[in-house]
Amino acid sequence: MRLRNVKGAAKILENNQDLVILEPKLYRSKWHEFFGNQNPIHIEVGMGKGQFVYEMALKYPDINFIGIEKYDNVIVRAVEKLREQKPSNLMLIRMDAEKLLDSFADGEISRIYLSFSDPWPKNRHAKRRLTHSNFLKLYEQILNKEGELHFKTDNRLLFEFSLVSVSLYGMLLKNVWLDLHDDPDFDSVMTEYEEKFATMGKRIYRLEASFKR
Amino acid sequence: MRLRNVKGAAKILENNQDLVILEPKLYRSKWHEFFGNQNPIHIEVGMGKGQFVYEMALKYPDINFIGIEKYDNVIVRAVEKLREQKPSNLMLIRMDAEKLLDSFADGEISRIYLSFSDPWPKNRHAKRRLTHSNFLKLYEQILNKEGELHFKTDNRLLFEFSLVSVSLYGMLLKNVWLDLHDDPDFDSVMTEYEEKFATMGKRIYRLEASFKR
Ligand SMILES: C[S@@+](CC[C@H](N)C(=O)[O-])C[C@H]1O[C@@H](n2cnc3c(N)ncnc32)[C@H](O)[C@@H]1O
Ligand SMILES: C[S@@+](CC[C@H](N)C(=O)[O-])C[C@H]1O[C@@H](n2cnc3c(N)ncnc32)[C@H](O)[C@@H]1O
Repeated sequence: MRLRNVKGAAKILENNQDLVILEPKLYRSKWHEFFGNQNPIHIEVGMGKGQFVYEMALKYPDINFIGIEKYDNVIVRAVEKLREQKPSNLMLIRMDAEKLLDSFADGEISRIYLSFSDPWPKNRHAKRRLTHSNFLKLYEQILNKEGELHFKTDNRLLFEFSLVSVSLYGMLLKNVWLDLHDDPDFDSVMTEYEEKFATMGKRIYRLEASFKR
Repeated sequence: MRLRNVKGAAKILENNQDLVILEPKLYRSKWHEFFGNQNPIHIEVGMGKGQFVYEMALKYPDINFIGIEKYDNVIVRAVEKLREQKPSNLMLIRMDAEKLLDSFADGEISRIYLSFSDPWPKNRHAKRRLTHSNFLKLYEQILNKEGELHFKTDNRLLFEFSLVSVSLYGMLLKNVWLDLHDDPDFDSVMTEYEEKFATMGKRIYRLEASFKR
């Protein structure tokens, strides 16, 4: 995600706390209460400017969506978009994924989306990849019994790493696409990065995995 | 594998039983004896004309290789090649993979290679794919504790199927390549099909997996 120098991003976030939560810990184990219903909660970790989570919220009104992003300069773009119209089943959180356990109770989440996560190509940065076992451990805790991880990327090496990481962690691969846009049956909401890369003719990889329980 | 009408293939096989075994059951649990050493035994299931297993045998003299192929018309080509020179650590078997348990005892094998296996694209033929769970069950039995399955193919849909099949069976993915020939570190003996497809610029997929023990 290209970081533009959005002046006063922090200020804008503070002034729009009906759209973005800056202290998500306060809502731990209270997210269903927060949304006012018992619908499943799907989160996107690293949503960027939030196009995907926004369109998903419109498309699936019976699911609650939470978009998570760590950088003020990036999430502020999602906030600006929501100022025009915020679906009631969508909320944003500014947070680092490392803190997921502070903000979500065991089994509170039904699905986690990761899209075009930063590849961190150097081996010594492998722990920063959002499909590293250290993160899978967090996902395992906050996902409920039937919960799933849905991951897509254009980055071949990150996808290879992720297949192995997920498998060695003991997760089950339920579906794999090695050229998502070639699948005529897959009716997928695109992310911003996905639109860009698909236009460039790049292949998109995707997997769906669950934890063994 | 294109089936040419090789006249008298069965006859040729009968006359060359020093190169190809037609009654492999006789050697069940006696393969180390057969090779006269305790070296690990690697088999290729569906070897076609045997180029891969032949070159592997030359490259790795401390491993015993067995090439398995079910069709007379195909395996006869491998036999003809071996008439010129047969490495002592290589043997061929004419057999259907469905009969693996008749010919190999529990844990007798250290590695199974599958290369460019027939894709059987129709769902109703899924059980014939050599990475279907019915076959994985056979591999699990004849492989020893550290045994591995190494599979490569150019067929994207078969590879997607295989990743999921292997994972849902409970196997561990140890390595995955989504573009094998793009990996500068991978020093791989090519199969006949692989040479053909690589020349055409097709991507080669590969995985290494083991059973949980
Ligand atoms: C390459 S962008 C992709 C954005 C969007 N998902 C898409 O597909 O268009 C990855 C985003 O993930 C965010 N991100 C990376 N690591 C994160 C973490 N540990 N916690 C929260 N967000 C993170 C980055 O700031 C960036 O905005
Ligand atoms: C497409 S060819 C590939 C040959 C070789 N592995 C290569 O990569 O060049 C697949 C071969 O597997 C053989 N085969 C398919 N199913 C088999 C089975 N159940 N048992 C033994 N061989 C089989 C076919 O007869 C064919 O020769």
